[in-house]
Amino acid sequence: MLAEIITIGDEILIGQIVDTNSAFIASELNKIGISVFQITSVQDDRQHILKALEEASGRAQIVLMTGGLGPTKDDITKLTLCEYFDDTLVKDPEVLKNIEYLFRTYISTPISEVNRRQALVPSRAKVLPNAHGTAPGMWIEHKDRVYISLPGVPFEMKELMANHVLPGIAARFSRPYILHKTLMTYGLGESAIAERISLIENSLPPFIKLAYLPNLGKVRLRLTAKGQDKAILEKGIKEVADKLYATIGDIISGEEESGTLEAIVGKLLTSKQLTMATAESFTGGKIAEQITSVPGASAYFTGGIVAYATRTKKELLQVGEELIEKHSVVSAEVASAMAENVRRIMKADFGIATTGNAGPTKGDSDAPVGTVFIAIASEKGTVVESFSMGNHRVRIVQKGVHKALEMLQKEILKF
Amino acid sequence: MLAEIITIGDEILIGQIVDTNSAFIASELNKIGISVFQITSVQDDRQHILKALEEASGRAQIVLMTGGLGPTKDDITKLTLCEYFDDTLVKDPEVLKNIEYLFRTYISTPISEVNRRQALVPSRAKVLPNAHGTAPGMWIEHKDRVYISLPGVPFEMKELMANHVLPGIAARFSRPYILHKTLMTYGLGESAIAERISLIENSLPPFIKLAYLPNLGKVRLRLTAKGQDKAILEKGIKEVADKLYATIGDIISGEEESGTLEAIVGKLLTSKQLTMATAESFTGGKIAEQITSVPGASAYFTGGIVAYATRTKKELLQVGEELIEKHSVVSAEVASAMAENVRRIMKADFGIATTGNAGPTKGDSDAPVGTVFIAIASEKGTVVESFSMGNHRVRIVQKGVHKALEMLQKEILKF
Repeated sequence: MLAEIITIGDEILIGQIVDTNSAFIASELNKIGISVFQITSVQDDRQHILKALEEASGRAQIVLMTGGLGPTKDDITKLTLCEYFDDTLVKDPEVLKNIEYLFRTYISTPISEVNRRQALVPSRAKVLPNAHGTAPGMWIEHKDRVYISLPGVPFEMKELMANHVLPGIAARFSRPYILHKTLMTYGLGESAIAERISLIENSLPPFIKLAYLPNLGKVRLRLTAKGQDKAILEKGIKEVADKLYATIGDIISGEEESGTLEAIVGKLLTSKQLTMATAESFTGGKIAEQITSVPGASAYFTGGIVAYATRTKKELLQVGEELIEKHSVVSAEVASAMAENVRRIMKADFGIATTGNAGPTKGDSDAPVGTVFIAIASEKGTVVESFSMGNHRVRIVQKGVHKALEMLQKEILKF
Repeated sequence: MLAEIITIGDEILIGQIVDTNSAFIASELNKIGISVFQITSVQDDRQHILKALEEASGRAQIVLMTGGLGPTKDDITKLTLCEYFDDTLVKDPEVLKNIEYLFRTYISTPISEVNRRQALVPSRAKVLPNAHGTAPGMWIEHKDRVYISLPGVPFEMKELMANHVLPGIAARFSRPYILHKTLMTYGLGESAIAERISLIENSLPPFIKLAYLPNLGKVRLRLTAKGQDKAILEKGIKEVADKLYATIGDIISGEEESGTLEAIVGKLLTSKQLTMATAESFTGGKIAEQITSVPGASAYFTGGIVAYATRTKKELLQVGEELIEKHSVVSAEVASAMAENVRRIMKADFGIATTGNAGPTKGDSDAPVGTVFIAIASEKGTVVESFSMGNHRVRIVQKGVHKALEMLQKEILKF
């Protein structure tokens, strides 16, 4: 069963916003066995939308659109749908009620005709009520195909997907299963991995695809199985995964489906009833931010210090003047001291510290841009590693955060 | 002059990655007067890529592809280009040198035939050297059209865009100018704004488009001018912007082109030689992280404390036991104390503090999910505001960070 996604909006085509809706919709559709054949981003233009609708209808049975449902002049999706389906707009009383309710309850400005006009929908459309906004979702059946139009605001779109679109599609179509398993590796490049697993790759069962996804110096291996019999797919994926573990287990750091690194760390800390604290220099608070992005983090994250300035390292983290002078702020010794002190100050089981130079200038140390030190302190002692992470500021921080969480995970497993 | 972007990769269509390349490429092309007509994401599939190439060629003069250039089986872009242009792959000595250099210098594993094969390019392609990776960019001229193929790794793609693609296009095509100005507003919805500026919107010069971009309860108004005479465009945009300021100046908070809020705050602090420090609870370090994402932040960011646990608020931020008991940790009083204390502890001119409940559970306070307090302390006193930010954890944090930076900006302007 194939679907296509059409995202509508000039803001996408001038690059003012990144289209995050498509990835969300695609992965949600995948979970219920719907493959997305193509994603197309088009302008707020009648002709362009009509053409995209026609082309998508020729390739897929489900056409999912986002955007162009606002109350203003540049929002023309509904009119264009009427033109495409030779339909007319009619006022939907339920939608009108919702709009009036939202204005009464949340919106300071008085409701206007323009707002009320958002209750107009194509007469043949089934309305998908939008609890969080004035633009309703729409479901239109036409020649064995389903056309779904959703607002472009991610948060409204997600709610409509979860409560209306996915259940609706699940009930409307019989679907195959699509299963993914993604093994995360480290230390080897794509081609080196490809050579080590060539035998496995050449003997994959026909219903399983293997893909390489390199990013930030790591390669993820994604297995995708597709078919009608879930048991067969699960068995097939497991068999291939087992072969991969047997062949390159030394470089597999985990499986993506088991969650993000911060979620994995969170689960580990919770299950072992351990706590952590952070002392961050070049990562600038990003480790704390990722840790606390996991609901329930307050159970194991006692707190963090962003010691960006050298003075803060001295005064708040009590890193000795002489230690800094002897080794410079970017050093294994200072990283270790930061980790040990924050662990003590925050009364945590683990202290995580980062110090380094993310550039573009050298800052408070002579260390070359890209040189970083990461330390993890616990009652079992302090481990510190140094890395050279290139000269790209954003990447240095990303890599640093990732590395720190990997090191922490390793340390937690010692408990 | 029209361009189209084709992003190639199954990982996009199963929603495993968000396609951020398109937005970057589109905005860069816009800056040199090239409009992107459509963005199409297709699978690692010969037929699908061929079809997308053909369709894009019918609509645009520049076709820019990313992805599918890796060394592994699933990367078939180069073979498909050969098929499309009826060409064959030849080994490029320069590319081979670069691959061998990268392996000698950065890659631990020995170079293999698979790696060397990445030096194969279509014979008619002009190679765009990739300083950061083994996959070269390619530039192919065909029937007055230019086809450009770039690696999908964002960081390699960006470098190739800046050093080869944009200069190449600028030299190859005569282009119109495309100018954008985006006014950021707050406090009013799309439709309410539309009513207030309807006269302006109805009398726009033909070469200027106005678009509404709502997000997180704020609406951005984007003016786009396109034409051959830059002076006329600049004049036109300025005139419309001036009218908008005259009509809705009360709700305009700034212009997007002047940079992100953290960059604006950074500029202000630098120019006034003032410093700041953060004490974050529910924002979990995200304010510090955004502030330090700006190169040179060490000049004005003395440091931050992530006081996630109540105990940390007491011990590290020296917030009084009785104050917390009397008002609860989620209160204006505690927010103010956190801001004032972190300002003192970190010896900064401004102390920024957040406390609140981002959910999903109530945590250490009885405050309903979504209730937050943000305080800014300076020598001019402490301002504290309370907000009710809904029940969506991620949004609560995003809004909180944005609000805090807005409040900080306002306070800095008092100096």
